[in-house]
Amino acid sequence: MHAAWLPPEAWRAIGTRPARVDGEGLLVQTVLDELNAAHAAFGGGPGAPQLVLALSPTADGGPEGYSLGRSDGVTTVLAEAPAGLLYGLFHVVRLGEAAFADDFPATVHRPVHARRMLDHWDNVDRHPVMGQVERGYSGGSIFWRDGVALRDEARVKAYARLVAATGINAVAVNNVNVHATEAHLLTDRLDEVAWLADVFRPYGIRVHLSVSFNAPMLLGGLPTADPLDPSVAAWWAAVTKNVYDAIPDFGGYVVKADSEGQPGPFGYGRSHADGANVLADALAPYGGVVHWRAFVYNHRQDWRDRSTDRARAAYDHFAPLDGQFRDNVILQVKYGPIDFQTREPVSPVIAAMARTRVAVELQVTQEYTGQQQHVCYLGPQWSETLSFPLAEPRTVSELSTGGLVAVSNVGDDEYWTGHPLAQANLYAFGRLAWDPTLSPSAVLDEWISLTFPGAEAVLRETLHAMMDHSWRTYELYTAPLGVGFMVKPHYHYGPDIDGYEYSPWGTYHFADRDGIGVDRTRATGTGYTGQYPPPWCDIYESLSTCPDELLLFFHHVPYGHVLHSGKTVIQHIYDTHFEGVERVRALRPLWERVAGLVDPALHARVAERLDEQLRCAIEWRDQINTYFYRKSGVPDAHGRTIYA
Amino acid sequence: MHAAWLPPEAWRAIGTRPARVDGEGLLVQTVLDELNAAHAAFGGGPGAPQLVLALSPTADGGPEGYSLGRSDGVTTVLAEAPAGLLYGLFHVVRLGEAAFADDFPATVHRPVHARRMLDHWDNVDRHPVMGQVERGYSGGSIFWRDGVALRDEARVKAYARLVAATGINAVAVNNVNVHATEAHLLTDRLDEVAWLADVFRPYGIRVHLSVSFNAPMLLGGLPTADPLDPSVAAWWAAVTKNVYDAIPDFGGYVVKADSEGQPGPFGYGRSHADGANVLADALAPYGGVVHWRAFVYNHRQDWRDRSTDRARAAYDHFAPLDGQFRDNVILQVKYGPIDFQTREPVSPVIAAMARTRVAVELQVTQEYTGQQQHVCYLGPQWSETLSFPLAEPRTVSELSTGGLVAVSNVGDDEYWTGHPLAQANLYAFGRLAWDPTLSPSAVLDEWISLTFPGAEAVLRETLHAMMDHSWRTYELYTAPLGVGFMVKPHYHYGPDIDGYEYSPWGTYHFADRDGIGVDRTRATGTGYTGQYPPPWCDIYESLSTCPDELLLFFHHVPYGHVLHSGKTVIQHIYDTHFEGVERVRALRPLWERVAGLVDPALHARVAERLDEQLRCAIEWRDQINTYFYRKSGVPDAHGRTIYA
Repeated sequence: MHAAWLPPEAWRAIGTRPARVDGEGLLVQTVLDELNAAHAAFGGGPGAPQLVLALSPTADGGPEGYSLGRSDGVTTVLAEAPAGLLYGLFHVVRLGEAAFADDFPATVHRPVHARRMLDHWDNVDRHPVMGQVERGYSGGSIFWRDGVALRDEARVKAYARLVAATGINAVAVNNVNVHATEAHLLTDRLDEVAWLADVFRPYGIRVHLSVSFNAPMLLGGLPTADPLDPSVAAWWAAVTKNVYDAIPDFGGYVVKADSEGQPGPFGYGRSHADGANVLADALAPYGGVVHWRAFVYNHRQDWRDRSTDRARAAYDHFAPLDGQFRDNVILQVKYGPIDFQTREPVSPVIAAMARTRVAVELQVTQEYTGQQQHVCYLGPQWSETLSFPLAEPRTVSELSTGGLVAVSNVGDDEYWTGHPLAQANLYAFGRLAWDPTLSPSAVLDEWISLTFPGAEAVLRETLHAMMDHSWRTYELYTAPLGVGFMVKPHYHYGPDIDGYEYSPWGTYHFADRDGIGVDRTRATGTGYTGQYPPPWCDIYESLSTCPDELLLFFHHVPYGHVLHSGKTVIQHIYDTHFEGVERVRALRPLWERVAGLVDPALHARVAERLDEQLRCAIEWRDQINTYFYRKSGVPDAHGRTIYA
Repeated sequence: MHAAWLPPEAWRAIGTRPARVDGEGLLVQTVLDELNAAHAAFGGGPGAPQLVLALSPTADGGPEGYSLGRSDGVTTVLAEAPAGLLYGLFHVVRLGEAAFADDFPATVHRPVHARRMLDHWDNVDRHPVMGQVERGYSGGSIFWRDGVALRDEARVKAYARLVAATGINAVAVNNVNVHATEAHLLTDRLDEVAWLADVFRPYGIRVHLSVSFNAPMLLGGLPTADPLDPSVAAWWAAVTKNVYDAIPDFGGYVVKADSEGQPGPFGYGRSHADGANVLADALAPYGGVVHWRAFVYNHRQDWRDRSTDRARAAYDHFAPLDGQFRDNVILQVKYGPIDFQTREPVSPVIAAMARTRVAVELQVTQEYTGQQQHVCYLGPQWSETLSFPLAEPRTVSELSTGGLVAVSNVGDDEYWTGHPLAQANLYAFGRLAWDPTLSPSAVLDEWISLTFPGAEAVLRETLHAMMDHSWRTYELYTAPLGVGFMVKPHYHYGPDIDGYEYSPWGTYHFADRDGIGVDRTRATGTGYTGQYPPPWCDIYESLSTCPDELLLFFHHVPYGHVLHSGKTVIQHIYDTHFEGVERVRALRPLWERVAGLVDPALHARVAERLDEQLRCAIEWRDQINTYFYRKSGVPDAHGRTIYA
């Protein structure tokens, strides 16, 4: 397997210098083991320490933070708790030789978000439709194969180490869609979860488990899973005690309830607060939390019904429940109101739950953003989302009082992520969860330095040129102006402009011969804009202030509508799609320039995917342009080829 | 399993009367066995025979024909060969009491087509995408399940008996898409085919086998399957000898070559005549035939390319090869140039192969005609097709010098066909293959009389009202005016108007804001009309003579184009879709009228499917109407509801 951002070379600066570690505990031992391995590789051994990592009761930074400075030729990490030493060590790795050059004053580093979590949508059985990993584009699961626990310690440990180095401290190990086999992880297959917890623990990562709301019936033989039924509460309490007996630092449960066919409290006439609280009560004695997903909507909508609006659903369901959730319930809210689209407005739910802990959910796996066939560095999307002042002056990151969550993009692929450059997304999520104010380009630069140690300037520049704006490039050649979807049903890869237009999924663009877009205004549409606090409720409501990139999410406009950019909607569609393809076309020659600077196999893997990206981008361009030319009848102002 | 059109009651007229059989042979024994069973059921036994079935060297009718008459109180079937006695017996069954009423002069009956064949698209393994039966809507295969031969003698015998009663005398037992496991039926799993042949044989049915063109490599370990390579020819000869050793009356091979991913002679730079002839030569010594499918086209077409026309493909490939095929090659041609659509023109290939034996292929399984969820009696479609004077005065039936073939709709469903009324399609195919001049409504009437013995007038009328025009009804609410497809990709059920529009499958409608249809004229289009003999090449070429129902197959016209009916295209679309749904809506109350007259379980099964048909028809209506309203902007002249 590929070393990703922790190749041996990344440890050279540390491995060539004597070090000292003061402290005790499992994670201190991990720090020692890492240092010993680095010293073994690079010959640094005994001697006057140039690096000191020490536990200190007076250190600043809290349970995971640390101070880092250098004086008198000694680089020093001080931490209050062992986790801080581990994160401090990885900080020194990132700095490389710079950590041991000039002195610099000690500064304190602590994570902005206490819980930085990856959700694995891994199945235990290979699901007949979704496969081993739902929305996985990197091969099979690193945890299970065909119903059997893999117990591949080397692989899982390598993963734990990689994500710990980015700052991740929580992993949910199975798919939120909990099928029959997977349900048993909670009880008779708990040993498989405990085994994973044992491997993750030395890297400061707690394990969480997705559970079925109907577990009391599926596994407990109860006649109901009604959250207000005392026998149900007792069952959850007993089962949860067993979990903590096996995994004392177990993180908690993840629940997708009343969503896309999963069972939930609605089945018993109960609210989602009732549903979440019964699990929360079972977890509370042990310090566990329940991540309760807000992804609740009608997935059997009638496309004829223009009044129902899927974008409204989560707010309509959850905002009235604010204040009713236990303290150890974390409402897990997708960043946008629909579903991980390339461009969506931020979900208004995030600002609507002042008395509820909220965790924003991002998607590292590129379900709608090219499925790890396309270069699409998502750091800029996440940065933009997290810094968005949804409840001014409070940003989305500040409103995410329950931490951050993202769906992992990892599988048993030799490069972990299918597309080698998609490793950067996994890296960036961890780093932005630790500090959302980091510049995505700077994070990318860190990733380049670590992954390609000694990267020559041309490689660094090339990767920045290919990746910094790749999200925007992807947006250019796919669904325009925030309208979303237009992807192949079920697969979500490649264009199908009408693929969801007459479906029950609630994801429509309403294009006709005159115009396109979804009217979500209060004045004439679904009223969704009213779910936003000021000023956004007014900014989005008005055609004159709605940002171009979200125009079709909020408004239905004629093709001749003039954007703030000065272009008409139809000409914008043509221009962005021609430009998007040209941007993609430029990638392959860029990549060829660095052919001798990276491992040939990795180079070949990326090259092959760039070819597929270009093929697919051309398909997007031509289908979108032809579709809208056929509908609008408006020719391209520049006379480029649009197929009739 | 359901008795279909041979319930015990159907044998009452025979079973209550003494009979005599003169002759010997396997099929004579079958006749005797049938009579004995009928007598056992109804008490008719010894006595002066009122029914005589006798072999007679002077009888007229050829190898399968017979004469049937009644004089002096004795009904007499005379046949030259045993098969004629069996078909004569089933004729008497159809007549029922009428066979034993007034005397009637002897008339000779002989099949119009010597080979009347059903192709099973059954897989041995359950195919991960296509399932146990490709395009099967009636449960699993009656031959195989999950890779294992079922050897369910009762089931297969019942099937043989049912289809023999309609006149079928050949069955291909496996899918034309020959996957890895299925390829072995030719060699190491030949015993499974031989077992089937043993069960089919007493009913006069010969077994055929679909084989992979690459079998010499897959099974024989040869380095090539080049049809001109002597080792390949020798391999086919040796393997075929083994087949005939095991199955002396084996019918022959069915081959789908160079088609939708199946291997073929193109892979070796050889023609399809070369490919077919190597198999034909291996079969010739034993009287076997090869059914070579003409379904060859580019399934990786570029939708941007308006000059390539899938409709042209079979003619372009095969017409130049006329005269190059061995006598025992039968070119198997789908009735239309595309793929079993509800409405297509007749394939011009059928008239282009004067020196080649041709078998027209129909589809009993309702892949594109409602998948046995919808009532769609296809007798009228087949009757219209077979009587079409493609090479005036010669009809399609007359041009089908190699017999008729159809894809079976049967599975292990208790009613055989999923929708009980879809049994009528299986029945009608056999009867029309025997005599294409039969009225489809009369054939339906036969089916009603046999299946619902003693049917009261109200039941008979109801079934006629529901079924006689059901094909036309299906057409009304689906793709308009011969344009075809508009179905959900892959599944081919339910509407998806643009589902294939940007696909590589070559099935497009080219609808834009101004008009719709495929220009296949010589003047301005793909030139496909030129593949027809006169007068059709001119009739289809001209807007003024092209039949309305095929207009959009041949022409791209504005929505305002006025049809021969006097309506504009767009108003025709609206009107037919509203009317189609109303026709479907009328079915359920009709069916309720006869609730007490049929078996309750059968009634419930049909009722449930009628509900689904209505749901689906409404979906078709609304999606089609909305799609074309959005594109054309033309409102319904009658102000009915079209969703925006």
